[in-house]
Amino acid sequence: MWADLAPVGRATTGGYRRYAWTAEDHTLREWFAGEAVARGLGLVEDRMGNQWAWWGDPDADGPGVVIGSHLDSVPDGGAYDGPLGVVSAFAALDALRDSGFRPARPIAVVNFGDEEGARFGVACAGSRVITGAMTADRALGLTDGDGVTMAEALRHAGRAPETLGRDDETLRRIGQFVELHVEQGRALADLDPATSAVAVGTDIWPHGRWRLDLPGTANHAGTTALADRQDAMLSAAQVVLEARSAAVAGGCVATTGKVEVEPGGVNAIPSHVRLWLDARGADQNAVRATVSAVAEVVHRLGGTLREESWTDTTRFDTDLAGRLRTALGADTPMLGTGAGHDAGVLATAGTPTAMLFVRNPTGVSHSPAEFAERDDCLRGVDALTTVVRDLAS
Amino acid sequence: MWADLAPVGRATTGGYRRYAWTAEDHTLREWFAGEAVARGLGLVEDRMGNQWAWWGDPDADGPGVVIGSHLDSVPDGGAYDGPLGVVSAFAALDALRDSGFRPARPIAVVNFGDEEGARFGVACAGSRVITGAMTADRALGLTDGDGVTMAEALRHAGRAPETLGRDDETLRRIGQFVELHVEQGRALADLDPATSAVAVGTDIWPHGRWRLDLPGTANHAGTTALADRQDAMLSAAQVVLEARSAAVAGGCVATTGKVEVEPGGVNAIPSHVRLWLDARGADQNAVRATVSAVAEVVHRLGGTLREESWTDTTRFDTDLAGRLRTALGADTPMLGTGAGHDAGVLATAGTPTAMLFVRNPTGVSHSPAEFAERDDCLRGVDALTTVVRDLAS
Repeated sequence: MWADLAPVGRATTGGYRRYAWTAEDHTLREWFAGEAVARGLGLVEDRMGNQWAWWGDPDADGPGVVIGSHLDSVPDGGAYDGPLGVVSAFAALDALRDSGFRPARPIAVVNFGDEEGARFGVACAGSRVITGAMTADRALGLTDGDGVTMAEALRHAGRAPETLGRDDETLRRIGQFVELHVEQGRALADLDPATSAVAVGTDIWPHGRWRLDLPGTANHAGTTALADRQDAMLSAAQVVLEARSAAVAGGCVATTGKVEVEPGGVNAIPSHVRLWLDARGADQNAVRATVSAVAEVVHRLGGTLREESWTDTTRFDTDLAGRLRTALGADTPMLGTGAGHDAGVLATAGTPTAMLFVRNPTGVSHSPAEFAERDDCLRGVDALTTVVRDLAS
Repeated sequence: MWADLAPVGRATTGGYRRYAWTAEDHTLREWFAGEAVARGLGLVEDRMGNQWAWWGDPDADGPGVVIGSHLDSVPDGGAYDGPLGVVSAFAALDALRDSGFRPARPIAVVNFGDEEGARFGVACAGSRVITGAMTADRALGLTDGDGVTMAEALRHAGRAPETLGRDDETLRRIGQFVELHVEQGRALADLDPATSAVAVGTDIWPHGRWRLDLPGTANHAGTTALADRQDAMLSAAQVVLEARSAAVAGGCVATTGKVEVEPGGVNAIPSHVRLWLDARGADQNAVRATVSAVAEVVHRLGGTLREESWTDTTRFDTDLAGRLRTALGADTPMLGTGAGHDAGVLATAGTPTAMLFVRNPTGVSHSPAEFAERDDCLRGVDALTTVVRDLAS
């Protein structure tokens, strides 16, 4: 499975560009459907286009145990973030079947669409829409960098945007959701190697995204005196540095990873800079204070700051996490994370949800250099197999 | 003529996007050819694709008097920068003919290609190549934002890139070159309104462009501790602010108008920022010192700075400027400029060259808001007509 996925959407950098409802995404969806059909699973696409491959009938015998993750990527992302969870889910299913296991409840593998939000700007769009956390209207009106709306992208992909929305039928089928994911920091790499290949998730930090618009006045770079300039890029530079120092002060993290400068000519003074702020931290108040400090600078510079998304601290189901830890052994590490996941969206919606993290030896993620050892990945599959066997018995 | 050009390459912002060898550029070239043919002028395209419309035979009766400018634009540029010089040249030719003037020497209107360098990054590519200031090899290897080389763009446009190069035949035909251009600062707007509609150019400030590459390490914006980050955007912000403060200290101007952030995801730490520095000033040493100060910061941050172009102070022909002033009246203002022009490239190559500047009431240029009063434009045509009548008698 890993070899089949390796070339899809891979750039010359070695990184992946797998964005929602693009040709690469369709190839990944077809791969998922093929894996489902090859195993005789029941393939269902929900009202948002998330794919579910059911072993057993969730409507008759559910709710069931759902495992899986996503297949899309950030720009120039790694191979593991997302696909490891989907591939491990199919592998766990195979291991259960090979061992002759007969589940007492249905089991599904899920591929959530558009988890990274790389194209339309909102992360976890697939799970947000089906849980009602994002309205269909808002989702359909989101635009990509070329001005294409999600509605247009869906229509172009042969889907019916008018069916988009909260999907209670799908949600009813989920008894528990367990998402396996590569760890994205060095939290496990720094623990005892013997017992830290796989951890159980406890919570997701509060996190959000803000769009910042900074105004300037377009003018000639050679003939306009410095005193006569309103240069939006100078404002942006101040905001970028303020975001870092406010995050240091608040003990959280802040990032400006996407920046657009207009008009973008070497010899034209920038008339407008759009940049996006990503801020997270263990303490919700600290994150809010960091964003407020940035907002103050933005407003002083005549700009605007608009919240595109915000998610409070998400605690995974304590009982379920305890059950996973019992199944996997008492020395299994418990881990909070600064990364958002579909598991967090489902947990917020009330679905009993858990996560398993596979060790990341370098802590690098969202990068072509993202990596996990093969042995650790296999131990992730073993852990997922153990967990599903327990939950579906 | 103005109304014919108005819609070509106009964006919804009201600004123009007329880049070399694009569909918009072809439309402008066809317009130029049409104006030449309608007047019975001899249309010639030189070895770089610059267009020349000759009244008379420059090989038999030359060298001649050349007037004109360029038709391309910066991203979201104004209507006047370039086209005013070409339209005024045709209008001056019409005025001379209407008055029954019989030139003693041939007269040409020129449209220099790719003056702004908006697509391939090097300004005045058209004049640089035919004068040998830029080699054909370097020009052909320049790439646009999509990775298309100039050689590919030329071939796509039906031109033969292998013919590119210094064009002595074309240069021999130019006795004098007078480029009329809209002023790009407030230098004329601040003088006596009665005598400052048109000025004679004295020199072009030394100016250059540098490409700066700042390294970072791609990683996840939520799970990577601030201390573990190497964020290229933080480096870029420091460089942008250093460029401004160094320019203030040196009494010159510096601009970072083009910035590219990779990988460009909201939740990914920037792994690479490319930005371009434009620096100019009346004093060459001050400009060099400013760039050195920026380079020091770039190197300290592990980055590189590469000179893409540099032009020393360009003095226009003193005799020719004096002759223009005599023809136009002793109260005609004399003006240096921070903007580069094809006239500067030709002057450096040894062609007797002059410029006329038309008043800009707001000083705004390289912007949709760029403007000149109709009356001032007509006085520009009158001045150009007077000058050509003098030179071609």
